[in-house]
Amino acid sequence: MQRYFVSSSNWNGNEVTIQGEDVHHIVKVMRNKPGDNIICNDELGKSAICEIKQMEVSSIIAEVLEWLDEDVEMPIHVTIAQGLPKGDKLDLILQKGTELGASAFIPFQSDRSVVVWDNKKIVKKMTRFSKIVKEASEQSHRTRIPTLHEPMNLDGIIKEGLLYDRKIFAYEEEAKGEHYHSFASILKDLVKGQKLLIVIGPEGGFSETEAQQLKSNGFETVRLGPRILRTETAPLYALASISYHFEEFHINE
Amino acid sequence: MQRYFVSSSNWNGNEVTIQGEDVHHIVKVMRNKPGDNIICNDELGKSAICEIKQMEVSSIIAEVLEWLDEDVEMPIHVTIAQGLPKGDKLDLILQKGTELGASAFIPFQSDRSVVVWDNKKIVKKMTRFSKIVKEASEQSHRTRIPTLHEPMNLDGIIKEGLLYDRKIFAYEEEAKGEHYHSFASILKDLVKGQKLLIVIGPEGGFSETEAQQLKSNGFETVRLGPRILRTETAPLYALASISYHFEEFHINE
Repeated sequence: MQRYFVSSSNWNGNEVTIQGEDVHHIVKVMRNKPGDNIICNDELGKSAICEIKQMEVSSIIAEVLEWLDEDVEMPIHVTIAQGLPKGDKLDLILQKGTELGASAFIPFQSDRSVVVWDNKKIVKKMTRFSKIVKEASEQSHRTRIPTLHEPMNLDGIIKEGLLYDRKIFAYEEEAKGEHYHSFASILKDLVKGQKLLIVIGPEGGFSETEAQQLKSNGFETVRLGPRILRTETAPLYALASISYHFEEFHINE
Repeated sequence: MQRYFVSSSNWNGNEVTIQGEDVHHIVKVMRNKPGDNIICNDELGKSAICEIKQMEVSSIIAEVLEWLDEDVEMPIHVTIAQGLPKGDKLDLILQKGTELGASAFIPFQSDRSVVVWDNKKIVKKMTRFSKIVKEASEQSHRTRIPTLHEPMNLDGIIKEGLLYDRKIFAYEEEAKGEHYHSFASILKDLVKGQKLLIVIGPEGGFSETEAQQLKSNGFETVRLGPRILRTETAPLYALASISYHFEEFHINE
């Protein structure tokens, strides 16, 4: 069944009003008719099977048939701060990262990012990114859409870090040496509801200054397996491992 | 340092002869000169730091300076049999799957694959795929290039499965219900050197017939986390989790 995120302000008791691009999707792509069922979510994790009651040109009214009790969100909150990569790699990270359960994303303007976003570019990009995370949330049947933060520089990331229980960064140098923090030892310390911030460098990795500043502000270095991962693969490795650790490993032990 | 895979037949004691496209890469892209160092690997896992001695138009001779003892290969052998996906998604799976440590890939012509490859297309595709896995192996500093099998149908996959210690398939229906095999319980049973075959369906998933045939031939269903993953995200989730389980989880316990 197709899933749509509908703003809380459009829920009135058991009645849900769908507007905007989703109307087009329901009418033209899914070719639904009154009487058909869809799943509606609000932004806070509430979801229900709804029946389409009324179809207008710019809005659709649906009625809740059955409230759902879904448990598909990661037990810990994971934010990916991603060093701005080249090309459209951030699209891939946002789409796959959403499927893999990330709670939030922060585009991180780092020393070695080749691209620099001006304000005009940021506005355009953020619109595109919002659409990607919404659609990926619907497709992967999540009950929450990840938060998309405005781009931050290192100072912003460090300040943001104050809100987290644990802060780590994937530092390539660690993977080469024999002494490194185990990703598992960090995950083992986290409990349900806690917040983890993961900072990933761009193609060239972190500069020494950045690594130093992160370390002196309580960010721990970590390795993500023994192989060298591309910047866009690292957040996916981290998220999949976290899902495996918290959502699969402890089952049927 | 840049890494190149050189066929075993081009190693003669401490002398390595590099030919083909790598010559272009060394001369034009990296702009190396005699006296510069590179890393050379053979297909069997041997690797060494080598010094460039002699540069001709179509070949380069390098001499071993130091044999390396690298341990970056996954302790279990993982083969991904991937239901043929749409567009160029297989490119992404091969590149990222190589970074994440896969031992082999099998393109799987399944019931719900929208694309069908004829022989002409296969030849062209396989050349392209070989290049992708070789380059991804070099980039992620692996010591082995994953094996790329010719496309197989379900019968081929089932026959191939006889060579493996454990065979699993990601069946979306499992993720929806309350009864499913835990991926972790399967990984916990595997020991170093064993072989795992993971079959992933295309966009539409497995047909019921396929699922039935796989089950009756010893393939176990498994879920890969509680969210619905796209066909190209599923193998990456599986590989990252396996890496985390065997390469990160048991460290610093």
